[in-house]
Amino acid sequence: MDLIDAVKFDGGGLVTAIAQNYATDQVLMVAYMNRETLTETLESGDMVYWSRSRQTRWKKGETSGHVQKVREVYIDCDGDALLFKVDQTSAACHENYFSCFFKQNVGGEWKIVAEKIE
Amino acid sequence: MDLIDAVKFDGGGLVTAIAQNYATDQVLMVAYMNRETLTETLESGDMVYWSRSRQTRWKKGETSGHVQKVREVYIDCDGDALLFKVDQTSAACHENYFSCFFKQNVGGEWKIVAEKIE
Repeated sequence: MDLIDAVKFDGGGLVTAIAQNYATDQVLMVAYMNRETLTETLESGDMVYWSRSRQTRWKKGETSGHVQKVREVYIDCDGDALLFKVDQTSAACHENYFSCFFKQNVGGEWKIVAEKIE
Repeated sequence: MDLIDAVKFDGGGLVTAIAQNYATDQVLMVAYMNRETLTETLESGDMVYWSRSRQTRWKKGETSGHVQKVREVYIDCDGDALLFKVDQTSAACHENYFSCFFKQNVGGEWKIVAEKIE
């Protein structure tokens, strides 16, 4: 696929993938894809990552149902990062927050600044 | 600094840093910081990265004047990515686009979908 020819995968064969909520532009999470999971993501319209810790394909929401449907895809100037605008079902974070970035620096400490999704 | 104790730097001593425009929530760029440049960023309020390709400290805008002033800082659930909401002067991208993510997948091709900043 032509799109993938422009992607500069790193030495480990991975590219950084940012997921951003389509409706609100909130950043949801950052993870990685390899050539195969990027191809699957582009063809299926569902976000599919590569887990560095488990060294496995990881389709977001495959077990939880918290899938991410791709709405728009962007590549950065040097081709080593992708930005996906997605429709997030339920919560992106495995800790049941909508975004994985739910802790903010408040006065020099990380404070939880979001509510859990029930 | 307590904040930094929660950061999980990777095997190369780096953490992923996403810069997002404070006023509009547009994602500007993604790069990396090491312990020293993260400390400098938090203490100075200006975004300072670590360049993987040049293996040097890289203060955003130091030569171009296109500095990024930190407004808010978030950490993700597993501590290996940081999200900075910033005030971006002029353009984040060295190609003079406001965001480095100026190419979008349109019908299976990467198309430039932003205007250059003059």
